[in-house]
Amino acid sequence: MEQINKYIESNKERFLEELFGLIRIPSISSIKEHKPDMYRCAEYWKQLLLDAGADKAEIFDTPGNPVTYGEKIIDPSLPTVLVYGHMDVMPVDPIELWKSPPFEPEIRDGKIWARGADDDKGQAFMHAKAFEYLVKTNQLECNVKFMIEGEEEIGSVNLGEFCEKHTEMLKSDIILVSDTGMIARDIPSITTGLRGLAYWQVEVTGPNRDLHSGIFGGAVANPINELCKLVASMTDENNHITIPGFYDDVIEVSKEEREKLAQAPFDLEEYKKALDIDEVQGETGYSTSERTGIRPTFDICGMWGGYTGEGAKTVLPSKAFAKISSRLVPNQEHEKIAQLFKAHFESIAPKSIKVEVTPHHGGQGYVCPIDLSAYKAAEKAYEDVFGKTPVPVRSGGSIPIISTFEKVLGTKSVLMGFGLESDAIHSPNENFPLENLFNGIRAISRFYKHYKG
Amino acid sequence: MEQINKYIESNKERFLEELFGLIRIPSISSIKEHKPDMYRCAEYWKQLLLDAGADKAEIFDTPGNPVTYGEKIIDPSLPTVLVYGHMDVMPVDPIELWKSPPFEPEIRDGKIWARGADDDKGQAFMHAKAFEYLVKTNQLECNVKFMIEGEEEIGSVNLGEFCEKHTEMLKSDIILVSDTGMIARDIPSITTGLRGLAYWQVEVTGPNRDLHSGIFGGAVANPINELCKLVASMTDENNHITIPGFYDDVIEVSKEEREKLAQAPFDLEEYKKALDIDEVQGETGYSTSERTGIRPTFDICGMWGGYTGEGAKTVLPSKAFAKISSRLVPNQEHEKIAQLFKAHFESIAPKSIKVEVTPHHGGQGYVCPIDLSAYKAAEKAYEDVFGKTPVPVRSGGSIPIISTFEKVLGTKSVLMGFGLESDAIHSPNENFPLENLFNGIRAISRFYKHYKG
Repeated sequence: MEQINKYIESNKERFLEELFGLIRIPSISSIKEHKPDMYRCAEYWKQLLLDAGADKAEIFDTPGNPVTYGEKIIDPSLPTVLVYGHMDVMPVDPIELWKSPPFEPEIRDGKIWARGADDDKGQAFMHAKAFEYLVKTNQLECNVKFMIEGEEEIGSVNLGEFCEKHTEMLKSDIILVSDTGMIARDIPSITTGLRGLAYWQVEVTGPNRDLHSGIFGGAVANPINELCKLVASMTDENNHITIPGFYDDVIEVSKEEREKLAQAPFDLEEYKKALDIDEVQGETGYSTSERTGIRPTFDICGMWGGYTGEGAKTVLPSKAFAKISSRLVPNQEHEKIAQLFKAHFESIAPKSIKVEVTPHHGGQGYVCPIDLSAYKAAEKAYEDVFGKTPVPVRSGGSIPIISTFEKVLGTKSVLMGFGLESDAIHSPNENFPLENLFNGIRAISRFYKHYKG
Repeated sequence: MEQINKYIESNKERFLEELFGLIRIPSISSIKEHKPDMYRCAEYWKQLLLDAGADKAEIFDTPGNPVTYGEKIIDPSLPTVLVYGHMDVMPVDPIELWKSPPFEPEIRDGKIWARGADDDKGQAFMHAKAFEYLVKTNQLECNVKFMIEGEEEIGSVNLGEFCEKHTEMLKSDIILVSDTGMIARDIPSITTGLRGLAYWQVEVTGPNRDLHSGIFGGAVANPINELCKLVASMTDENNHITIPGFYDDVIEVSKEEREKLAQAPFDLEEYKKALDIDEVQGETGYSTSERTGIRPTFDICGMWGGYTGEGAKTVLPSKAFAKISSRLVPNQEHEKIAQLFKAHFESIAPKSIKVEVTPHHGGQGYVCPIDLSAYKAAEKAYEDVFGKTPVPVRSGGSIPIISTFEKVLGTKSVLMGFGLESDAIHSPNENFPLENLFNGIRAISRFYKHYKG
């Protein structure tokens, strides 16, 4: 540990300069105007990898944004680690809430403040520097590959196909990803589960035009009333989802594992206070952590119809819409769930309306077994740095590409995340503590020490 | 009839020019930015009345939009007719569905296409022209007063107080209103009943900010899901409203009257075809005409919350909103109903969310007895023009101010409406057939012939 500490100390300023250069490129993938920035970012990553010690690095075009790939193969017979990260970032609106400009990183209170400081420029950068340290000090004992994509924040729309095209190039024994968080700065944790996601838009049509609610009200089905009834019926009084077959593929988590998961510290009063709610609410029979960690959901993400302007307009609208998502647990197939929803929704809709269900993107859940050798190596690496065994955590979020990796490349991922909840990823004033940045570099370099394939 | 026909023929172009000038003023009362247009409209009406032959015309300020008042008193001992109309119009959204700009009236297929062409610029204008005809041809045999307000579409919020302040000025024997429709172009009808209206906005708040639906979904109440459940529970499987006490003041219409009302021609297949619906839907035990004519309703006029843009955004929103209206039958008090709703909604809301109910405007229902002398005069006027006795109809719509007139001024109203269902009032592509416009002028001028007080 002493050697890596020294290396970080003597290269600190250069590390930050390099990271700040990366952050200054406004690589917002959801906004078309930033396409040239995606290429600048891909070039920057190529140079970072070459400078860190990669044998080669290359930019691959996709139908969308580019992917930077780099590798150092020291011996094909040794284990290979594939590092996955992303160079794109979320939009910055509402811009007026930022205390310093999002693409002009600055250090205040021991933290880097900028869009991408954590997600995922800061976290992916840690891997480049841990790799550099191992190469420059002749300690690298396995092959390393890097795949840095530019579309994670828009659903990794082209990365699945990229993986299918380059299975040989991307062949590895384990995939390392730093794009998640830990429970607290002094409570290390490793995300071992991610939920999948199914997402649909529904459109309900009543009469062929907006009607006068007096002339027609009471005699013609109102599509908003009907949509409310339909979606309200999708969960029961126990917040259990009523779509037939929805839970068929859910694997009940064992009592033992639930007990282990319950050990993660959680303060319900703090949780409610932070959200300004009087009561939590969820599926009967499960704790708050279980409701987000090991159970699927049914959430209306958006809904609209009729008159939504100022004041009162008496209208019986023609249409109503909703965007609905279900977070899924591992083993639930998002395409099957979308079909179950569609079939059920269509079957219970009254004849007085027409309904249309359009599935959007989706993704599978993911589980990392805690007896995987790479997980054990990560666990030891955290112990080396934090002096504590990391807590395995089932996250409620989804990184759909992780399950794609497993499906297409046949490789498991270990999610060595170092973000904190206070990092405000996707929000104004995103930040990343320097402590977490350097601890991440330390822990990743220790992973390579412990990992034997 | 020949004389009025000639008068219309020789003044047709001028009539249309004058009406188009009125329509071109975008007097949308629900949008604050249009306040100056309300004053332009009031001035326009003042000039219309003076040009038509009023002795005087004046614009009165109210705490909201102005009222134009004009009169011609030929002999205080003769009967007095008070004409009521409104100069304001509904908003025009969704603007993209209009085939021609809403405030640039044009004639196609024998109809005027524009916002307000029927409701109520076209229909109120008929009274000015019938009055002009009677004055210019020296046939006026009673006193005439005009009261044209600017807030009908937002509930006539200040007109009640205006009436209270000016009871003497507004004194009359009968109030004439053209703001309703007839069954079909060849089936004249007179509206003898109007429904009342209660209107509320509800706001549901879950967490204090939009949340990541993965991290929090399943554990925190989603305000859209909850709002759907709450409003879905407000009607049962028979489309009966479940708010406790809601029906307490409803007077059941007698079997005899229901039989009489059932005589109005109604073609269910045509009705469904015109709306492009496979089935009608409403309260069990009542016909379509009864559902709109003699029964109250619960309609969501607008609803919104969360992400409503393009594509998919996984968010657990902080807030959800709905605008809800209930059409009421005579004897239901709108303020009582608003209180019943508010109390019930608040009582069934779970503790995981906060709810706020804001009552908007409302109004009472109204019934016009068909043995009223003014009703008889109107009946004869329709016979003169259409060659048929008009059918008395209970309308589903509301003109809350009509019951206020009765209460404050002690005067009954006769609703001589000439609109058609196809006029699409409150909707895109509002229109008014020239035939109806001119038949309206004809029939109103005949009313004055038959009305003896």
